[in-house]
Amino acid sequence: MRTFINVEDIGDLRQALAEAQEIKNDRFKYQHLGKNKTLMMIFFNNSLRTRLSTQKAAMNLGMNVIVLDVNAGAWKLETERGVIMDGDKSEHLLEAIPVMASYCDMIGVRSFAGLTDRGYDYAETVLHQFIKYSGKPVFAMETATVHPLQAFADLITITENRDGCRPVSERQDNGFTKSEDCGTNSGEPAAKTTKRPKVVLTWAPHCRALPQAVPNSFAQWMNAADVDFVITHPEGYELDPQFAGDARIEYDQMKALQGADFVYAKNWSCPGVTRPEDYGKILSKDPGWTIDAAHMAVTNNGKFMHCLPVRRGLIVTDDVIESENSLVIPEAANREISCSVVIKRMLESM
Amino acid sequence: MRTFINVEDIGDLRQALAEAQEIKNDRFKYQHLGKNKTLMMIFFNNSLRTRLSTQKAAMNLGMNVIVLDVNAGAWKLETERGVIMDGDKSEHLLEAIPVMASYCDMIGVRSFAGLTDRGYDYAETVLHQFIKYSGKPVFAMETATVHPLQAFADLITITENRDGCRPVSERQDNGFTKSEDCGTNSGEPAAKTTKRPKVVLTWAPHCRALPQAVPNSFAQWMNAADVDFVITHPEGYELDPQFAGDARIEYDQMKALQGADFVYAKNWSCPGVTRPEDYGKILSKDPGWTIDAAHMAVTNNGKFMHCLPVRRGLIVTDDVIESENSLVIPEAANREISCSVVIKRMLESM
Amino acid sequence: MRTFINVEDIGDLRQALAEAQEIKNDRFKYQHLGKNKTLMMIFFNNSLRTRLSTQKAAMNLGMNVIVLDVNAGAWKLETERGVIMDGDKSEHLLEAIPVMASYCDMIGVRSFAGLTDRGYDYAETVLHQFIKYSGKPVFAMETATVHPLQAFADLITITENRDGCRPVSERQDNGFTKSEDCGTNSGEPAAKTTKRPKVVLTWAPHCRALPQAVPNSFAQWMNAADVDFVITHPEGYELDPQFAGDARIEYDQMKALQGADFVYAKNWSCPGVTRPEDYGKILSKDPGWTIDAAHMAVTNNGKFMHCLPVRRGLIVTDDVIESENSLVIPEAANREISCSVVIKRMLESM
Repeated sequence: MRTFINVEDIGDLRQALAEAQEIKNDRFKYQHLGKNKTLMMIFFNNSLRTRLSTQKAAMNLGMNVIVLDVNAGAWKLETERGVIMDGDKSEHLLEAIPVMASYCDMIGVRSFAGLTDRGYDYAETVLHQFIKYSGKPVFAMETATVHPLQAFADLITITENRDGCRPVSERQDNGFTKSEDCGTNSGEPAAKTTKRPKVVLTWAPHCRALPQAVPNSFAQWMNAADVDFVITHPEGYELDPQFAGDARIEYDQMKALQGADFVYAKNWSCPGVTRPEDYGKILSKDPGWTIDAAHMAVTNNGKFMHCLPVRRGLIVTDDVIESENSLVIPEAANREISCSVVIKRMLESM
Repeated sequence: MRTFINVEDIGDLRQALAEAQEIKNDRFKYQHLGKNKTLMMIFFNNSLRTRLSTQKAAMNLGMNVIVLDVNAGAWKLETERGVIMDGDKSEHLLEAIPVMASYCDMIGVRSFAGLTDRGYDYAETVLHQFIKYSGKPVFAMETATVHPLQAFADLITITENRDGCRPVSERQDNGFTKSEDCGTNSGEPAAKTTKRPKVVLTWAPHCRALPQAVPNSFAQWMNAADVDFVITHPEGYELDPQFAGDARIEYDQMKALQGADFVYAKNWSCPGVTRPEDYGKILSKDPGWTIDAAHMAVTNNGKFMHCLPVRRGLIVTDDVIESENSLVIPEAANREISCSVVIKRMLESM
Repeated sequence: MRTFINVEDIGDLRQALAEAQEIKNDRFKYQHLGKNKTLMMIFFNNSLRTRLSTQKAAMNLGMNVIVLDVNAGAWKLETERGVIMDGDKSEHLLEAIPVMASYCDMIGVRSFAGLTDRGYDYAETVLHQFIKYSGKPVFAMETATVHPLQAFADLITITENRDGCRPVSERQDNGFTKSEDCGTNSGEPAAKTTKRPKVVLTWAPHCRALPQAVPNSFAQWMNAADVDFVITHPEGYELDPQFAGDARIEYDQMKALQGADFVYAKNWSCPGVTRPEDYGKILSKDPGWTIDAAHMAVTNNGKFMHCLPVRRGLIVTDDVIESENSLVIPEAANREISCSVVIKRMLESM
């Protein structure tokens, strides 16, 4: 595996989930793979979970890790060509990328959306420059439009908690190989004993304009998984079709949540699909969309999920996120697992 | 050992000092204990000695280390419950703590006093939330009211330099097991050949309001050790009774210093014991309290100690801190040793 | 080796280049040397290449690495003696240095020129305080007036690319031991089959006042190497004689570049040699000095070099830096190699 950006990069999901379970059972099993290999984590934006879980995953695999906060430890980088660089940017990505790449064997990139220029953000310029000019395996640690390490961790978490499935961590068999337990996109129809879980991605209000990376990747991965997937949001928040795919859109949030097994709450700003001029704007702060007990009451004893960080009182109420049905902590813990699988795959293909 | 906050956490001081010596003689002796274990160091405030010595100690013990500067690399964390989080804080400690804990095996926390709300500071809310919600061993890397790694290093330094004791590093026997050499709180009366050293904690002036963490812990540890302990400061600077204990208070600094074997200088702001409304205030900048040659002249050829960083010209004069009797450097070097003992204990109890 | 500041510190250049090749062929060959040894990298200024390549080199050699950004993770340090420290500096270097040194086995220091006080900068006060007070091996990671890790990497790069020499990385023999191939300052006259390459250090314009560290060290190392060395710059930019040595100065840039095998472009501010009152000033922004295709056309199919970061459009045009003759990326990659040799030498002498 040379890049990890989209769900296709991970290949068969059943196999990927089996590897996730294997690693969760013994996080240090593949430690020999990373010997004398160095991961460089490059942050253009701040991070908590990604920073920590990726370091942990790389160390589990025996790698050395170098963390670079571009803006704090180094300086601003120019990304456009043909510029006379007499401003505040001291170096061009065209030099910085191959140089950074020369000191490592693998690169993780964190780069947020600017939310002002839709074309620029969705072109993923920075990420693709890293892929093109580094010559090294590159994975997205959340970029302008995708957050695949999160979506993979979300899928692991849903798989561990879906009806009829014991949690991965408690199983003796590898579990994921039996379609009657946890069939995902295996091509086979789910066995009668398995209920396809209903997963609802719901927009929720926030005080700041946020990127679409998390809902984009979550939608992409859910479309590829063996689940009944519904997206709900106020009008105007339609996700880009390359990510939303054929997912069912339901503008009535309560209707969407009915019978849900998993409620995945997240705010995002306007993706600008129907009205490009609204890209990155906040179209609604409607507190009626905040997930509270009344919302959860219409679900099928649904589990609550969020990628974190979460603004309490805006996205979700205290009682819901602190309830027994909240999966936010094991979901975050699975970031170490999803990242371990990705790094292991990249190390194996070197 | 699951927490390291107060002197009671370390148990028998004689045994702890023996372990300190053992580790000082061979810093890598227990390296096997930390294999595949990760320490997460979480800083809410800047740090020099603690940051470096704790990393070194953890690496000596074979651990992986992740350093998180919360405000620089991540974002501000909400610590109050029931808040609608529409301000500048992106995440609640109630999520952040268990998430961070899920990526590591042990946590060190650095969190300073705000010095505005005595009740909040002395409740140690942040530290206790880490203990309650992380499920992992937690040690204080200086918090609002305590700095036990410093106090333990101070005790090691005093033990190495007290009359009749050869320095730990130069000894062949383990030393600390013989009460006639370095008896501490062993319950046995000190043998005739041992002089109980006089240790004086003296307030000194500073240009900024500083926390009471260092004097609090130093007082607590000296009260537990086999020394003659005196505290001197201007009126109004009385330490909290839970830390000052039965220590003798002497408001006349020169009288306190007479015959001292160890002079431990430190500034602190008003602890607000007698006048809660003065909490965190600077009550005096009296330059007469600055430790200079005249102050040291009345001691018993006393050693000068300070936890560092120290403001020269305010706390102490250049000639005193640069004198042969200054222990500030070996005292700081012992931070690696005190921390090694604490981490070793925590690893052993996993 | 206890210090690495000047070219003399590395000893025989032929031997140093042979070690560079050996390490480039197997970067992990000397990994046993660094076991249980810790490098502390101390940054008073930001850095990209030095930060990353030095970490990588130390990890290649099996060391633990602690990175300290003094201003970000700690606090400002006082460097002058006899000061009453009631300002913004919390700690004196006289305490900070031995304390930091007590937690490590080797120190790298990054400290830029202030460019206001020539005497202070050229005295290298901070660097020499580290050497004097740390008691540990110290190497310069670019300081006020020198950047020897860069100059050594430059020499490796020139050696790999000079006429008649196959690149080090492609050679089976060790190459550097044969004077007919890559003779450097071996004392023997170069054999007939070898052409002494013409190396031209050329000043180029920049929007900000930059230190002289890179051109100083480059000149010092080229003077010691087996090359035909020429320096060109506008009048007033004369380098300090301790670095310029006997190098030929040519004020006509195009004349200097004629027949050049290597063009080393770099901006620097006025060194204040002829007019001390101009120290650190920008005397020229003449765009005629920017290296473009017309400049390269008069060379002997010359290679373009720059230490990076480089301001495109000021120092060099896009077409030149992106041309096949540009060595900027392999030159930066050799920073890992030059640093590995230095750290290896220091480890061997412990």
